[in-house]
Amino acid sequence: MTRTLGIGLAGLGRMGRIHATNLTSRCGAARLAAVYDANADVARALAEELEVPWAASYAELLERADAVAIATPTGTHAELTAAAAEAGRHVFCEKPISLDRPTTVETIEAVQRAGVVFQVGFHRRFDPDWVAAAARIHAGELGEVTLFRTSLRDMTPPPPEFLAGSGGFFVDVTVHDLDVARWLVGEVVEVTAHGTASDPAFAAIGDIDTAVVVLRFENGALGVIDNSRSARYGYECSSEVMGSAAIARIDAPRRHGYEWRTPGLASHELPRDFEERYPWAYAEELDAFARCVRDGAPPRVSGVDALAAFDLAQAADRSWRTGRPVALTPQRTETGVRYETTEKDEVRV
Amino acid sequence: MTRTLGIGLAGLGRMGRIHATNLTSRCGAARLAAVYDANADVARALAEELEVPWAASYAELLERADAVAIATPTGTHAELTAAAAEAGRHVFCEKPISLDRPTTVETIEAVQRAGVVFQVGFHRRFDPDWVAAAARIHAGELGEVTLFRTSLRDMTPPPPEFLAGSGGFFVDVTVHDLDVARWLVGEVVEVTAHGTASDPAFAAIGDIDTAVVVLRFENGALGVIDNSRSARYGYECSSEVMGSAAIARIDAPRRHGYEWRTPGLASHELPRDFEERYPWAYAEELDAFARCVRDGAPPRVSGVDALAAFDLAQAADRSWRTGRPVALTPQRTETGVRYETTEKDEVRV
Amino acid sequence: MTRTLGIGLAGLGRMGRIHATNLTSRCGAARLAAVYDANADVARALAEELEVPWAASYAELLERADAVAIATPTGTHAELTAAAAEAGRHVFCEKPISLDRPTTVETIEAVQRAGVVFQVGFHRRFDPDWVAAAARIHAGELGEVTLFRTSLRDMTPPPPEFLAGSGGFFVDVTVHDLDVARWLVGEVVEVTAHGTASDPAFAAIGDIDTAVVVLRFENGALGVIDNSRSARYGYECSSEVMGSAAIARIDAPRRHGYEWRTPGLASHELPRDFEERYPWAYAEELDAFARCVRDGAPPRVSGVDALAAFDLAQAADRSWRTGRPVALTPQRTETGVRYETTEKDEVRV
Amino acid sequence: MTRTLGIGLAGLGRMGRIHATNLTSRCGAARLAAVYDANADVARALAEELEVPWAASYAELLERADAVAIATPTGTHAELTAAAAEAGRHVFCEKPISLDRPTTVETIEAVQRAGVVFQVGFHRRFDPDWVAAAARIHAGELGEVTLFRTSLRDMTPPPPEFLAGSGGFFVDVTVHDLDVARWLVGEVVEVTAHGTASDPAFAAIGDIDTAVVVLRFENGALGVIDNSRSARYGYECSSEVMGSAAIARIDAPRRHGYEWRTPGLASHELPRDFEERYPWAYAEELDAFARCVRDGAPPRVSGVDALAAFDLAQAADRSWRTGRPVALTPQRTETGVRYETTEKDEVRV
Repeated sequence: MTRTLGIGLAGLGRMGRIHATNLTSRCGAARLAAVYDANADVARALAEELEVPWAASYAELLERADAVAIATPTGTHAELTAAAAEAGRHVFCEKPISLDRPTTVETIEAVQRAGVVFQVGFHRRFDPDWVAAAARIHAGELGEVTLFRTSLRDMTPPPPEFLAGSGGFFVDVTVHDLDVARWLVGEVVEVTAHGTASDPAFAAIGDIDTAVVVLRFENGALGVIDNSRSARYGYECSSEVMGSAAIARIDAPRRHGYEWRTPGLASHELPRDFEERYPWAYAEELDAFARCVRDGAPPRVSGVDALAAFDLAQAADRSWRTGRPVALTPQRTETGVRYETTEKDEVRV
Repeated sequence: MTRTLGIGLAGLGRMGRIHATNLTSRCGAARLAAVYDANADVARALAEELEVPWAASYAELLERADAVAIATPTGTHAELTAAAAEAGRHVFCEKPISLDRPTTVETIEAVQRAGVVFQVGFHRRFDPDWVAAAARIHAGELGEVTLFRTSLRDMTPPPPEFLAGSGGFFVDVTVHDLDVARWLVGEVVEVTAHGTASDPAFAAIGDIDTAVVVLRFENGALGVIDNSRSARYGYECSSEVMGSAAIARIDAPRRHGYEWRTPGLASHELPRDFEERYPWAYAEELDAFARCVRDGAPPRVSGVDALAAFDLAQAADRSWRTGRPVALTPQRTETGVRYETTEKDEVRV
Repeated sequence: MTRTLGIGLAGLGRMGRIHATNLTSRCGAARLAAVYDANADVARALAEELEVPWAASYAELLERADAVAIATPTGTHAELTAAAAEAGRHVFCEKPISLDRPTTVETIEAVQRAGVVFQVGFHRRFDPDWVAAAARIHAGELGEVTLFRTSLRDMTPPPPEFLAGSGGFFVDVTVHDLDVARWLVGEVVEVTAHGTASDPAFAAIGDIDTAVVVLRFENGALGVIDNSRSARYGYECSSEVMGSAAIARIDAPRRHGYEWRTPGLASHELPRDFEERYPWAYAEELDAFARCVRDGAPPRVSGVDALAAFDLAQAADRSWRTGRPVALTPQRTETGVRYETTEKDEVRV
Repeated sequence: MTRTLGIGLAGLGRMGRIHATNLTSRCGAARLAAVYDANADVARALAEELEVPWAASYAELLERADAVAIATPTGTHAELTAAAAEAGRHVFCEKPISLDRPTTVETIEAVQRAGVVFQVGFHRRFDPDWVAAAARIHAGELGEVTLFRTSLRDMTPPPPEFLAGSGGFFVDVTVHDLDVARWLVGEVVEVTAHGTASDPAFAAIGDIDTAVVVLRFENGALGVIDNSRSARYGYECSSEVMGSAAIARIDAPRRHGYEWRTPGLASHELPRDFEERYPWAYAEELDAFARCVRDGAPPRVSGVDALAAFDLAQAADRSWRTGRPVALTPQRTETGVRYETTEKDEVRV
């Protein structure tokens, strides 16, 4: 085997093309082995551009690669993951595994049975800024965490056709913050969600574009997440983790390291989307995946982690719909933490 | 009458001494006419230090001044305000007017009957940073507000003897953010509050030291407030107001305009309390009060405004105790907006 | 005598009006005793506005006050200072004492003979940001200073009639940085200056609007100053003092503590002139002067300090005119450091 | 030919290893074809680690590659460049081409005769922050440039054995700022340099560790550079370009996008060397070189540009040694701007 992991890439939409570029020019441990798309013309064109093979079928992609990265539409993630696992291929899969919980669980079991490495695409866990702050938090430099606050806001909403299959606001947007909450603070025992549609187009499809989610952690700390589909001013992804000894504030206010001053006004550019904000994180998540395969190490975000974030997002969705907090009970299992949820009717103390 | 308003100051504790210093050295339209304290020795000593008269009784203070500033313990605010109004003296009173709602309403009616200027001490409305941002928000530069987020965190908790008479977390701490929410965004129709005591000393007295409060505004926007009694790292008072055209972020991260860099690390000092954060605001609130008296203008924060913030704080308290959202109905009256509140049992949509 | 020093203010132009406002509303140890201006109408109008007495003559001003603040045109500073000193009045005088060196020396001797407090208006020494950084520098926290860098840039040039009597670029602008260099680092042994007129209007009167001045300090450190009359983007006054243990960076990039974000761009307002940048420093310099008088303490900037800065500015002017470095020899005297200067012809090593 | 340019890397010291990593994991248009080092063991070990061929001789490296990147000791740059050019290989060469001017000129002529692409390693021209700011400056958004200010400061000095062959302070350090001055502002007509050795070890070898260089540009603007070998607090590389319409401030104050706050203090990490400050620039300079070869385009930094920066650095060195300004005359030639220099004796106006 060569030094780099040959990754077959399935799905060549926006996210897929980001992965293709990263695999050909920003990864040290991985390389792009072949590309596949349901639309063969798309695959052929990109293959020519990048001078890599293209596969006419997903089965052919599996043959040509040591591992696959799945960036196809959400509805196909579970099936493609299971097929790859069955063929003994390691799998990197974009989130969510599925919008259906039983299917998610089955998929996780399938990769566990196959014994392949399975990593889900929560990119923030691979960004150098977040990783550096997380290292200090996990080393205990904050003391006991007492408050977690985070904002994830897109500049402009995705197109309606995407929204239709997104799984709803909490599963599509908030899930990233819920994963970060678990990563940086710990397990959650209560979720209360509030939402609104500032744009009537969202109300029309029964969805929202703005939300506030309040978390209560196992250790008693409170957490608060605010999210927006259309912040307009830019892409915001910032966080505060406050502890008994210090507070970490994670941010990236500048798109470039320069400031421009005109009469009476100093300004700097803001990142406008996740690509501008996280140029490294998407490359590093694939590189880290390849290193896990190489070293036989467990991935930083497992299928069970993805399931936990999904369950929390579903709890937020239920809380928003019922107007009541949802209680959760984290269960420690051999493969990670799994949540059981119940709606809260009783009065809190 | 002279150019400056002679203000008699009642109550010479921490806040009273801040007012005394400001009245003698930072106000252009007001001056310190006399000082009074329940402890005559305190009053006499400060009077000598500042070379102003001291009053042996509150009645004497009223005689010596055009107006009074009341910074006595909370329980006496209502009575001293009413007495001053009856004597025809304009009144600046620290918040809250009273911890009892009927007393608050009676006090407001008393000053209205007397026709004197009555201003309550919400200092942020007078800080140059907040005033400058508010001017642009009120001018419509943000467009329609869609999200309001604010943090107020004290570095260290007040002493237990203060807490006993504070009225509880929401009435003492959150009330400032609730006033700012009304000022910058508008009226509130729903409050949901979550709290926790990270320090057992708070739990022991049935209080909390950390809270998250979610607001729903009349225009459909969401708001979120986080508060802490013991942030440890410093005094935080920052805010974001997001609209359809822009977002305003109000902050004051540096205590001084310099940065100190040691090997590998750049650092700056943080303000440690409201005095360090708001050196101007406390002077300006008294100066603005004096200008209102001089010009016959209404004050920027009326008794009715203070009542509205108090009602919102009480709603937060109730929500925290019941675990349910509290609905509010803002009523426009001649003298300002008044709230009616009901606990929400029904499911939200 | 009362608690506050009654200061008579002479000269009611821009700087004089700043002092008048500060003395009536921002000083704790000083008050405005009376105002005087060569134009009696100006004095009378301001006196009515501020409800203070006005003096028909400078002699009358001296009678009505414990001390004077002189903000008249530069050409009269020396004479008015000497007259005040002779009358036993303490003197705060705007810089420069005089554009003529012998007159400057005579004036210093006159106030020394009279035994009054004499302070010259270098405001930066009284700004809280600079004072806080200077305290740490003087406490040795930087270690040995190795590099000093500072920028002073006006947003827009003064009117031509001012320039005519300004004493030239180095004496009018650079002198502030030269004083700061002495304050924060120590004495200077060599000055090399470079200048240019980016605006032909300056070239037409034999002056410049942009300059770079290089300093060599007694301890071997290098210093560099850049100055501009028309930076256009705002008023810049920032500095770096680098030592063997740390570096201090003094700045004040924001006019207000808020940021405004529009699509893709975050911006904050810049101070546009020294009034916006230094709201406290001008009040504090008079308050500090009053406290020196009260406490019998030496002022923070003496006449001898002003002479030293003037001599350095003259050295810069000579260097710019000759294209050669100018060497200086600081002499320690009882009343402070005095400079002797010689033009350098020899080659440096 | 394949899509990526196969680059043979000569010299596997610190800079060479950075290039090796970038060529294998951060370049889209280039790949590492083979490695060579005077020490064959070093080459063999790195080749095994990166799974690329190693060359036993420089001639073999040339055979195995489309182009070479030269990161060997300075004394060998010219010879290796000429040999590569003769063999028809494109050349990327670390600066300086040579410490000897005639050799530099001959090398430039050799690559011109051979008609190969020749790029010299001034990395800042390839950093995304600088490139973004430069694009706006070159588009005229600043108006006419009036002042240029820049700081380049290393955290810790290089080892003595490096210093011996470095060519001296100005040729080794300042040369980067001189290249940036030409890039962002234009040609220089006068250089005046001041230097000092704050560390006696530098004085002992006749060198300096701190310098200030003043530039006068063809358009009349002034420029000022400060440099240090041992800033201690971190690696500084920042700049201001002030024009008649705006000012650009290029900086990168944070090593990571998070801030850490402990009681009373907010801090962030600083980059400690050029690798931490410029993770992208070194990859991009090789990628851009490869794209030039692919597209037949001229490189962004030619040999003639490197010669111009070298001549300005030599002028700074002469000015420092003589204590006089050095005048330069930029000559426009077909292949770029070349400088003629003369020492200034006469008095400037």
